[in-house]
Amino acid sequence: MAEEVTLLDFWASPFGMRCRVALAEKGVNYEYKEENLRDKSPLLLQMNPVHKKIPVMIHNGKPVCESLNIVQYIDENWKDKSPLLPSDPYQRSQARFWADFVDKKAYEMGTKVWKTKGEEQELAKKDFIESLKLLEGELGDKPYFGGEAFGYVDVTLIPFYSWFYAYETCGNFSIEAACPKLISWGKRCMEKESVSKSLPDPKKIYEFILQLKKVFGIE
Amino acid sequence: MAEEVTLLDFWASPFGMRCRVALAEKGVNYEYKEENLRDKSPLLLQMNPVHKKIPVMIHNGKPVCESLNIVQYIDENWKDKSPLLPSDPYQRSQARFWADFVDKKAYEMGTKVWKTKGEEQELAKKDFIESLKLLEGELGDKPYFGGEAFGYVDVTLIPFYSWFYAYETCGNFSIEAACPKLISWGKRCMEKESVSKSLPDPKKIYEFILQLKKVFGIE
Repeated sequence: MAEEVTLLDFWASPFGMRCRVALAEKGVNYEYKEENLRDKSPLLLQMNPVHKKIPVMIHNGKPVCESLNIVQYIDENWKDKSPLLPSDPYQRSQARFWADFVDKKAYEMGTKVWKTKGEEQELAKKDFIESLKLLEGELGDKPYFGGEAFGYVDVTLIPFYSWFYAYETCGNFSIEAACPKLISWGKRCMEKESVSKSLPDPKKIYEFILQLKKVFGIE
Repeated sequence: MAEEVTLLDFWASPFGMRCRVALAEKGVNYEYKEENLRDKSPLLLQMNPVHKKIPVMIHNGKPVCESLNIVQYIDENWKDKSPLLPSDPYQRSQARFWADFVDKKAYEMGTKVWKTKGEEQELAKKDFIESLKLLEGELGDKPYFGGEAFGYVDVTLIPFYSWFYAYETCGNFSIEAACPKLISWGKRCMEKESVSKSLPDPKKIYEFILQLKKVFGIE
């Protein structure tokens, strides 16, 4: 059967980037459709009527929603190439735990860094670094969260690496100073074509955040 | 190998109940340890240092945290009996989507129903019923969310059924009037011993919520 894969996405979305990286890891060809989040397409509203959010992956006409769910589906459906989740049930549970941690903490903490000022921002930076340090502890001395191979937690976290420059510039701090191993990990991931071709230029993300700040009336 | 399974839990937690139901479905014997959430045990803090939350399942000395992650681990580790997730990747993605929906919406919406008053409560009740109607739509005419068999979404949602009486009494409304099929589903699930023996008496949940209201200074 000819595979028809479409990704409804928005270029700056770390959640969309996860799907792009996972599809690239599996070597799946797909049509990329950029959404205007202020005027969502009828296709997006039809395919994700519950959350009305990108990313949505449409596979042979059927939608899969929510980025971690999409990445797991990609891994289970194209299982012969570049496995992302480990095969051992306990290792799988640990990978899911850390992916869930990134989902619950990293985005929210990072957003607070650029959306706040003064004391509130100092606290946001502290919380953000604490979350990253927990992740760095889990990484340990392994090249990837997945061990020797790039895996599920790597796919989940690496998109935020393209947002780090914006967080650092808005917050006037260095993530590398606090978490050098995590930055080495990010650079290592960027050597993979599946990652470097799926992530936008960090300076563009920074410009995008400056626009958002104007929209939200910050500064 | 002798399996050693311990569940760190709190009787009224719908998240803990998920693990109890899943373990009962699989016929796994385990030691239940009730936690005092105002004075957490050293074991809980050691086994879940990141979130410091129940439930935690300890399997042969190793912890698994976060309820949906625990249920998936139980399903993958004891895979020969009562499969909870479907085997087809697309069906799995749909089950994960709805479990995630319950996680993100049902608890938060339900909590708003008992924590608020007046107009705010009316809005909370409306949102809560809307979420349940989406779930009822997904259930359709099937006996279970899992189809003919009790599955992953059923395990995820059924604990809230034991909280319905409290929501209804606090909010002075009938869930059955709005979602009769969902209530029939709940009754059907309660006929299963794995469910009925894992869920507390709804009146005790109501009394527990009355205590919480006092703690939070509501009414």
